[in-house]
Amino acid sequence: MATSPSPSRSRSRSLIEPDGGALVDLVVPETQRPSKMAEAEATMPKLKISKVDLEWIHVLSEGWASPLRGFMRESEYLQCLHFNFLRLSNGSIVNMSLPIVLAINDADKAAVGSSLNVALIAPRRDDGNDSIVAILRSVEIYKHNKEERIARTWGTTAPGLPYVEEVIAPAGNWLIGGDLEVLEPIRYNDGLDRYRISPSELRGEFERRKADAVFAFQLRNPVHNGHALLMNDTRKRLLEMGYQNPVLLLHPLGGFVKADDVPLDVRMEQHSKVLEDGVLDPKTTVLAIFPSPMHYAGPTEVQWHAKARINAGVNFYIVGRDPAGMSHPVEKRDLYDPDHGKKVLCMAPGLEKLNILPFKVAAYDTSINKMAYFDPSRAKDFLFISGTKMRSFAKNKENPPDGFMCPGGWEVLVKYYENLQANEAG
Amino acid sequence: MATSPSPSRSRSRSLIEPDGGALVDLVVPETQRPSKMAEAEATMPKLKISKVDLEWIHVLSEGWASPLRGFMRESEYLQCLHFNFLRLSNGSIVNMSLPIVLAINDADKAAVGSSLNVALIAPRRDDGNDSIVAILRSVEIYKHNKEERIARTWGTTAPGLPYVEEVIAPAGNWLIGGDLEVLEPIRYNDGLDRYRISPSELRGEFERRKADAVFAFQLRNPVHNGHALLMNDTRKRLLEMGYQNPVLLLHPLGGFVKADDVPLDVRMEQHSKVLEDGVLDPKTTVLAIFPSPMHYAGPTEVQWHAKARINAGVNFYIVGRDPAGMSHPVEKRDLYDPDHGKKVLCMAPGLEKLNILPFKVAAYDTSINKMAYFDPSRAKDFLFISGTKMRSFAKNKENPPDGFMCPGGWEVLVKYYENLQANEAG
Repeated sequence: MATSPSPSRSRSRSLIEPDGGALVDLVVPETQRPSKMAEAEATMPKLKISKVDLEWIHVLSEGWASPLRGFMRESEYLQCLHFNFLRLSNGSIVNMSLPIVLAINDADKAAVGSSLNVALIAPRRDDGNDSIVAILRSVEIYKHNKEERIARTWGTTAPGLPYVEEVIAPAGNWLIGGDLEVLEPIRYNDGLDRYRISPSELRGEFERRKADAVFAFQLRNPVHNGHALLMNDTRKRLLEMGYQNPVLLLHPLGGFVKADDVPLDVRMEQHSKVLEDGVLDPKTTVLAIFPSPMHYAGPTEVQWHAKARINAGVNFYIVGRDPAGMSHPVEKRDLYDPDHGKKVLCMAPGLEKLNILPFKVAAYDTSINKMAYFDPSRAKDFLFISGTKMRSFAKNKENPPDGFMCPGGWEVLVKYYENLQANEAG
Repeated sequence: MATSPSPSRSRSRSLIEPDGGALVDLVVPETQRPSKMAEAEATMPKLKISKVDLEWIHVLSEGWASPLRGFMRESEYLQCLHFNFLRLSNGSIVNMSLPIVLAINDADKAAVGSSLNVALIAPRRDDGNDSIVAILRSVEIYKHNKEERIARTWGTTAPGLPYVEEVIAPAGNWLIGGDLEVLEPIRYNDGLDRYRISPSELRGEFERRKADAVFAFQLRNPVHNGHALLMNDTRKRLLEMGYQNPVLLLHPLGGFVKADDVPLDVRMEQHSKVLEDGVLDPKTTVLAIFPSPMHYAGPTEVQWHAKARINAGVNFYIVGRDPAGMSHPVEKRDLYDPDHGKKVLCMAPGLEKLNILPFKVAAYDTSINKMAYFDPSRAKDFLFISGTKMRSFAKNKENPPDGFMCPGGWEVLVKYYENLQANEAG
């Protein structure tokens, strides 16, 4: 490649374009904050938002959902629900498979009345007092048909879907869309904010590392050597394809997860150990948090996971067995066909510019005492070690088989499961 | 317009192109029938199909679903379910919102085994004996996840959806896709076959009538004067837009409908009276049957209703309140937001070339004793006369208010409801 005359030209040349052409940034510039805050305080109805609403504001504010500039209005919501994409004013389309919406109840709706703009308030992390975190402008209120939203997003309305039970069921029967202005960057003050790297910052980091390919690995579980095999193999494949410097974005999901998933702080510590232990190479890996809440909506959600990463400069996306899937909450089966995620992702509208890398599932191969790609012709040689299984190892002070996970990473989990047991007993 | 040198050039110039560029015709040419039949009889596993399966074969055979050439394989099914469109090999897209699939059970699947091709058999109308109606080639069998199909198609899984209860629930847990060869044109011998006009024949008819605009009205109910108002107004609008000869396709749905809908033969008689009585002008109206089964899937189904008509040469599509909607089977509300149908239709992928004509709802205006567009500012002047209401008029030997429906048409309904009552009493 020729030397680029300016960093901005070089950036646009080397990294994939964000959806809609420009990365959305909804954080109000510092100089405008006092006047916006004063306007919101003095003139706007106030709406209390939930923890998960704030996670979505975080997601929107940094442009993960570019070109979306706020919570969906009805026309965006309907396109998302029915077609999994949004058509832009220039006729082009961008993928958008999960409704990013703000629900309000009857009292909220009455409070908004005919106001054009509303202020969104959340408890502050430091003193617990309510404060205005964002303004929603030119609002539109429309019906929140929860049954239809759930059916079309999850392909089931069975009771027991975590996001439905914890987020949608308690929410109001109206949705309010509009353009978002976020009054300051969202911070969590939980010791992990340094990992919350925005799409724009990630693009800067990939530039600095002179990445000519960026491949992302989405996860919400501890990294075992099967995952590592897959990521290291991807790097090898990309080098073979002629890329000089493929960089891995190891990108655990940081928003809402179901109660029995391993908590974010434990996962981050585990992931750090995996890098320290050299299972993944820190020189070619960026570890960061993807701030989105988790829907567990399988083929519908995996599109969101992929689309959001485009906005961070990712042009290769690894997809394995049953992405964003879970067990059916009622029946004894996977909620989704484990192959549908990758099939749907490969056909999804608006993701044509992203290279999808489907992978076989890895499991512990007892014939070589290593994690390896599952070979159905000798299925009985392979051990699948689930979260439940890991927990039972830790509970019984057993180690998992050699080569399942690096010792440093395993130690983090043992400590976590021990504490969990102590808490449950106590 | 200049005189066209040849009918085929003139046709392609004046009527809208079918989806995919060419109208699909899956009926085997007569000369090939004996050999195909012999091949099917001698070499292929036989699958028994249902009445509704046969309706779908009819739909597919005549190209209403062009460019689809048979029951969906998994990749078509997934695109349909998740995105409501199919991507063609040239990169273009066509709308496809309803799964057109053939379900089989475990025994059928075992019978097919690894056969490439299967023969589809149905009872003959004349003697009730089974006969081979079609061949499905290069078949692919995949899972029929009914819950997911229902949730994504209807946006609910509530019990009591007519197509679900009567067609999907009793069907097997596998779907079989493939290329269809239909051994002879599908006929019903019910006295109505003359109204079953194929897309190709309709195009011919529109050509003969020198139509420069074709507008369709989809319905599954008797035509009242509110419908007529809407159709006649559309013609006026098209004339004002500069079209010389707009032709109406009055296109009642002829396949599966729910038990309390008025049967097809009664509806056809009623529609004929409406034309005889001059409520609609026979010179500018083509009355024909749309052979599709009905899903009652609202915004998802209205896309199918519109898309199929493109293939018959229709370039203007009338859409009113709550198309393809019904009451929620469990809750006391409409299943769909009555405005979502037209909103979704206007944004639907692959329907960009179709002109959507959204219409306000018409009701009986007691201030002028006529059907008129509903005016919410004087709501109490308007009477909505539902099917249930019509039935109670007929039951009590009352006439509906003057101007609701032409007398000839009303007479047909009175006779039907009287018979129905007699049967129910008997």
